Amino acid sequence: MSKLRVEGFTISLDGFGAGPNQDLDHPLGVGGTSLHGWAFATRTFQQRLFGGDGGETGLDDDYAARGFHNIGAWILGRNMFGPIRGHWPDERWRGWWGENPVYHAQVFVLTNHPRAPLVMDGGTTFHFVTEGITVALERAREAAMGKDIRLGGGVNVIQQYLRQRLIDEMHIAIAPVLLGSGERLFEGIDLPALGYACTGHEASSRATHVLLSRQ
Amino acid sequence: MSKLRVEGFTISLDGFGAGPNQDLDHPLGVGGTSLHGWAFATRTFQQRLFGGDGGETGLDDDYAARGFHNIGAWILGRNMFGPIRGHWPDERWRGWWGENPVYHAQVFVLTNHPRAPLVMDGGTTFHFVTEGITVALERAREAAMGKDIRLGGGVNVIQQYLRQRLIDEMHIAIAPVLLGSGERLFEGIDLPALGYACTGHEASSRATHVLLSRQ
Repeated sequence: MSKLRVEGFTISLDGFGAGPNQDLDHPLGVGGTSLHGWAFATRTFQQRLFGGDGGETGLDDDYAARGFHNIGAWILGRNMFGPIRGHWPDERWRGWWGENPVYHAQVFVLTNHPRAPLVMDGGTTFHFVTEGITVALERAREAAMGKDIRLGGGVNVIQQYLRQRLIDEMHIAIAPVLLGSGERLFEGIDLPALGYACTGHEASSRATHVLLSRQ
Repeated sequence: MSKLRVEGFTISLDGFGAGPNQDLDHPLGVGGTSLHGWAFATRTFQQRLFGGDGGETGLDDDYAARGFHNIGAWILGRNMFGPIRGHWPDERWRGWWGENPVYHAQVFVLTNHPRAPLVMDGGTTFHFVTEGITVALERAREAAMGKDIRLGGGVNVIQQYLRQRLIDEMHIAIAPVLLGSGERLFEGIDLPALGYACTGHEASSRATHVLLSRQ
């Protein structure tokens, strides 16, 4: 069966997956952008996110690239889709990524507030799922047609899926930065009790890459 | 002035500096020993802790060795000295390390319960300090005679010194293991707000080594 994978999710040395006070100017919370230095430097991100030719190859790029390998659909928490909370005031917010988002696949956005699907350029459609994480996973699995599903985050959504033991594999990057506050990825999560173990560990100068797998 | 340094303090991927349920059989809590694989493999630990000739050199050993460089005195929390809580029932407990402990220096043990100093073989004396962390630091500084003071831990004691901004430098190792529960080193500690930043970061196959310094 296709796997549910977390890929390239970066936490700080003090364990935070996002900084505090997310808003329009700070999609990753204040200080959160510094987490992703390892990813922004890679050829994969330069090509996929910015359409450029540059970027570095090597260990960081290998991990960035594997995050897009064999992915047939995505699941995102609503805060990863945008800064709006509560009811959608109108249809104007169409994601952080412009008219041609980086996903090029069906993306299932978890929210408590219904909204019609949003068809974007480049093959991305955002579906808004109000029936919870299990339904979102079922719909994503169907859309992925045998490929894997990538769970983008954020912290709260990853925690929900972890508690249900629904995540098969996680690639976590630990960046050499301190955030001090924000959302701690593993707060209240007992990974060994949930059946997860560390199955890989290597580091570049920009991040330590860790693989966690459900046993 | 001599520095107060934390050296070789290891945390798990999920941020714990010790496992749960410390007792006589589990000085580092259940599962805590797995944290220290990188250290036990080094020549420095093999020689200093076990009196052997073996052990590996390289990055891990460089960090293990720097932890003993220019150290004139130590500070330990009481739980690092032993598993006994509350009043000392008698004088029989003399530490985890036998009659010739690894310190070979004056060691100041923080406790709420007075006890006479304990003179051990090899130049180690354990002093039991009941007047709090500042007095312990003053006494250790005097004993260190210009050299640095190493703060051994545990988690609670490091947190107390961090909150007072008394630690100058920390070497933290992040081991590729999951503990799931226990004492989280940076729980409730906002390191950037306290003036700390990451000033070094490199990794071996066994651990990621991080330097945090007060700016």
